[in-house]
Amino acid sequence: MSNKDTPARRRLDVESRREHLLQVGCELFAAQPYGDVWIDEVATRAGVSRGLLYHHFGNKRDFLVTVVEHEAARLREATAVGQDLPYKERLLTILDAYLAHVETRPHGYRALYRGAPSSDAGVRAIMEKNQAYQEERILEALSRDGREAPPLLRLAVRGWLAFLVSVCLHWLDNPALPRQAVRDLCARQLGSAILSTGHRLPDGVRVTVRYEDVPGQAAS
Amino acid sequence: MSNKDTPARRRLDVESRREHLLQVGCELFAAQPYGDVWIDEVATRAGVSRGLLYHHFGNKRDFLVTVVEHEAARLREATAVGQDLPYKERLLTILDAYLAHVETRPHGYRALYRGAPSSDAGVRAIMEKNQAYQEERILEALSRDGREAPPLLRLAVRGWLAFLVSVCLHWLDNPALPRQAVRDLCARQLGSAILSTGHRLPDGVRVTVRYEDVPGQAAS
Repeated sequence: MSNKDTPARRRLDVESRREHLLQVGCELFAAQPYGDVWIDEVATRAGVSRGLLYHHFGNKRDFLVTVVEHEAARLREATAVGQDLPYKERLLTILDAYLAHVETRPHGYRALYRGAPSSDAGVRAIMEKNQAYQEERILEALSRDGREAPPLLRLAVRGWLAFLVSVCLHWLDNPALPRQAVRDLCARQLGSAILSTGHRLPDGVRVTVRYEDVPGQAAS
Repeated sequence: MSNKDTPARRRLDVESRREHLLQVGCELFAAQPYGDVWIDEVATRAGVSRGLLYHHFGNKRDFLVTVVEHEAARLREATAVGQDLPYKERLLTILDAYLAHVETRPHGYRALYRGAPSSDAGVRAIMEKNQAYQEERILEALSRDGREAPPLLRLAVRGWLAFLVSVCLHWLDNPALPRQAVRDLCARQLGSAILSTGHRLPDGVRVTVRYEDVPGQAAS
């Protein structure tokens, strides 16, 4: 392969070169299905040789696994905030951090939740670990006395996490929606999910949902 | 391949044999990642020759696409109910039909939402069509006057559909949870999602969600 028309090779130290390669991988895996991403294209875009890419990451599948693991770790780090706050503030702080991360790393978020083939056992294991982390963190915040969460509460929280991911992916495709509105929607849905299971929020906040008939608003 | 120890070959007419092959495919795609499913195993389990399977469906990937399309269609058919009911009864009727379908076709539902590799463009197209159908059906039911749904409402409904799928998959893994509780959780979450966007339900039902401080329940 000729390197004549590739970007000028940059001298970076090992860590930042690695980071750069992962970033290029993110962008490609975020933009197209796994099957359409070619290692040659990653190498060309990153301005390195194919051999160097294989040296760092092994084959394409291993490269994807590394990209996904890296993005999952970054998401966890970005949202490890608000530990000492009471429940409601903590939830809003974490959600703000989560949405800010989605906004600043759109390719990473898409690669993590849209690009990764669910049919790969290695990728699936990373996604499950990632989900378990998010789930436990929420259930821990909701627990008053360290007791095991009831199955219906766990179900509700897991469902809400899927809601959050779907909303964020759709939001990235429709960035005109204000972050505040997206955050409020997500926060209310979590509150409602918890309440639906009969669980009471830990810091003295009660959520009530009422369906009431409104006179004069008959069925259309 | 010897057929000595395969199940006795059955004489079925073309349609019911096809249905049987799709059912066997469902079970295998539901139970393991796509990469671990072998056409030989499908043929052996179904008691037919490999050649017949290829004759009906082409290669493994085309077989999966047919399985996914078939399950998506069955889910749509099973939930095409309650068209003439007012909004709230309609929602509950559709949700009941949806959950009953999940319960009676667990392999089909898992194959559709867990087995299908998101990295395949053909599979992705089917899933998107399926999601668009569900989304439009809900938005149509919510619309009073045929106007385009506001972007935030569409976001909320899309997120709720992801919630529903996640909850159903988790429910299949934990069947001890009563269907009624799962249905109520899903119904409340949709009501709350719609309300969060400021949209009013069409048939004179208003949903209110309130967060209130409860005296004597201080933060832990």
